[in-house]
Amino acid sequence: MASEHEIRAMRRALDLARDRGSCLPNPTVGCVLLDVHGEEISAGTTVPGGAHAEVEALTAAGERARGATAVVTLEPCAHHGNTGPCVEALVGAGVARVVVAETDPNPVAAGGVEALRRAGLEVETGILGDEVEPLNRAWRFAVTRGRPFVTWKYAATLDGLSAAPDGSSQWITGPEARRDVQVFRAQCDAIVAGTGAVLADDPRLTVRGTDDLPVARERQPLRVVVGETTIPSYYRVFDRVAPTLQVPSRDPAAVLSTLVERDIRHVWLEGGPRLAGAFWNAGLIDRVIGYIAPSMLGSGRAALEGEATTLADLRPIDITDLTRIGPDIRIIGTPGPAPRETYA
Amino acid sequence: MASEHEIRAMRRALDLARDRGSCLPNPTVGCVLLDVHGEEISAGTTVPGGAHAEVEALTAAGERARGATAVVTLEPCAHHGNTGPCVEALVGAGVARVVVAETDPNPVAAGGVEALRRAGLEVETGILGDEVEPLNRAWRFAVTRGRPFVTWKYAATLDGLSAAPDGSSQWITGPEARRDVQVFRAQCDAIVAGTGAVLADDPRLTVRGTDDLPVARERQPLRVVVGETTIPSYYRVFDRVAPTLQVPSRDPAAVLSTLVERDIRHVWLEGGPRLAGAFWNAGLIDRVIGYIAPSMLGSGRAALEGEATTLADLRPIDITDLTRIGPDIRIIGTPGPAPRETYA
Ligand SMILES: NC(=O)c1ccc[n+]([C@@H]2O[C@H](COP(=O)([O-])OP(=O)(O)OC[C@H]3O[C@@H](n4cnc5c(N)ncnc54)[C@H](OP(=O)(O)O)[C@@H]3O)[C@@H](O)[C@H]2O)c1
Ligand SMILES: NC(=O)c1ccc[n+]([C@@H]2O[C@H](COP(=O)([O-])OP(=O)(O)OC[C@H]3O[C@@H](n4cnc5c(N)ncnc54)[C@H](OP(=O)(O)O)[C@@H]3O)[C@@H](O)[C@H]2O)c1
Repeated sequence: MASEHEIRAMRRALDLARDRGSCLPNPTVGCVLLDVHGEEISAGTTVPGGAHAEVEALTAAGERARGATAVVTLEPCAHHGNTGPCVEALVGAGVARVVVAETDPNPVAAGGVEALRRAGLEVETGILGDEVEPLNRAWRFAVTRGRPFVTWKYAATLDGLSAAPDGSSQWITGPEARRDVQVFRAQCDAIVAGTGAVLADDPRLTVRGTDDLPVARERQPLRVVVGETTIPSYYRVFDRVAPTLQVPSRDPAAVLSTLVERDIRHVWLEGGPRLAGAFWNAGLIDRVIGYIAPSMLGSGRAALEGEATTLADLRPIDITDLTRIGPDIRIIGTPGPAPRETYA
Repeated sequence: MASEHEIRAMRRALDLARDRGSCLPNPTVGCVLLDVHGEEISAGTTVPGGAHAEVEALTAAGERARGATAVVTLEPCAHHGNTGPCVEALVGAGVARVVVAETDPNPVAAGGVEALRRAGLEVETGILGDEVEPLNRAWRFAVTRGRPFVTWKYAATLDGLSAAPDGSSQWITGPEARRDVQVFRAQCDAIVAGTGAVLADDPRLTVRGTDDLPVARERQPLRVVVGETTIPSYYRVFDRVAPTLQVPSRDPAAVLSTLVERDIRHVWLEGGPRLAGAFWNAGLIDRVIGYIAPSMLGSGRAALEGEATTLADLRPIDITDLTRIGPDIRIIGTPGPAPRETYA
């Protein structure tokens, strides 16, 4: 059984990992080393493109790691990646006990717990597993399903409209909602929009105004424009703030294949309505985040342009969160299977 | 100052009045008589088409009314309506003191407080005025503005749709939301729908399944069908459960004039989207109650078919209530002025 000190340390490792954000192509991991009295010796998180959390914490601890307990959010890796396996580092540093929240679904990296036990270390798993689970949900999804996890974000009026008939759409929601979007963007690996939305709104598709989130400073998500139309190079999506990729395809599954090959685990789909509709129809939206403004327009472009014929085409959304964000309403939910999938 | 007994009695008078529901064409009123020790002698509410609350309570009290305190939600009337003024009844019964929540905005009935004081009674006003205010909001609105208060109710998906492309719309929301609608319908004087909605859905437009609400048993709201198209007599809107009026007009203001002449104070507008859009464009919607289902459709009929051109046409809605009703989300709000009204 994990001690109270260890449980507290796991929460701290989780907080550190959350602050870190996406570590593409690796999962986000936090690690805290405790001495025999349960006092913290050092802590670390995976560095994007760099060392794993365990190695960061061990390096900071130096000789004090001998006999210590390592509290880690994810099973330490046993494979030889860029940085050598964490299992070897933990064993080599003389760590006595390892407490793990989640085991690793990646067949290449798994086996860490077994390897540690073979080396004579005491290992506990499943500690705060439920709390830690959301941290790498998208990463685990991509590893097990072979495509990125897709979060579709939209902003709409109460009557479901995302733009006026003349195409104007800025701003439907308030500054609080727009700031909230930045926090979510910072946790994704790619920000995706259709050529229609890019030409209409000239969005930057970058993470900004989030100086409190390390990920925003260290690396911007990849910007992805989907569609065949050429976007003039003076559009903001081609500025130097972040890399940009245009995918000239109309097949959402093909777009996701292109992205998973580039190590994208979590896609933030920003629309517009036709591109969102294409992903919706294909059943390729895994999470919906809607910002609903307290206003009505009466006519304009729908947030989603899909393909329903009759009410049986209604697709349920399991709402997991309903919150006011400033004057707006934020809804987070998971789409159920398309009715046609259900009866397939 | 009102005593604690009197404040408690005012809450009870309010509860009784709320249970009573609409008393068209009169306001809904509750009255509790207290003896000199603050104990309840009797209580009454206005009876639809019958006696006023004060008279009901006085009749029940008989001789015990002498020297009593009358706690009434609305200023007792001083005019000679069907039932004679309540002021005379209170004075005649020997009541010593009257505690009132709200004064009467109706110029014909007002002056009750003054008349009571002239007759030598002690009168306190404004007791729990804020709590009592919502009870007759629509009635007060109609008395002061000369047209009924309009509540527009809609049911839609998260993407703002109220019907599928083939016209099917039953049921978007769950049984809890549909039951909630019945409770609101019971508090209105007329249930209004367009010929389009009536022909598409053959709705009954009655109050049902609310046996705990006296109004549902005593009188159904007037059913009103707006539009020129003839509805065949076998449609359910013409059954014998409630009276039905067809108003063959396309002018929402004219429809409301017709209704106010028939003593309708509170209109419950159920749609469909074109009729709702006409009221919306005319600035004749005073409250919105939206039931939003946790689902998306992707294409279909919008809940509201209005007339926006650009984002400046966005009309704010001040959300006063956001609640889950079963799986659905209920939003209650007050529309702000149309942008064009603002700059007019
Ligand atoms: N409020 C919001 O949340 C929000 C967000 C974004 C946009 N908007 C509004 O949405 C409007 C733009 O709408 P839109 O529908 O033109 O934008 P869109 O969905 O971004 O772009 C449509 C384009 O996407 C490409 N595409 C790729 N795969 C597709 C597929 N399977 N089906 C259809 N198209 C596919 C096509 O590009 P090619 O023709 O180049 O091949 C198509 O023309 C603007 O008014 C904008 O302001 C609102
Ligand atoms: N989910 C919901 O909350 C809900 C509620 C109601 C209806 N619906 C759906 O809505 C659809 C019906 O839509 P709808 O738009 O045809 O129904 P509607 O708005 O009920 O009816 C439209 C009709 O209203 C009359 N009307 C009166 N004044 C008007 C004005 N100023 N402008 C326009 N029309 C005026 C016209 O009748 P005449 O042509 O006869 O003169 C017009 O054809 C159905 O699919 C139904 O299922 C959904």
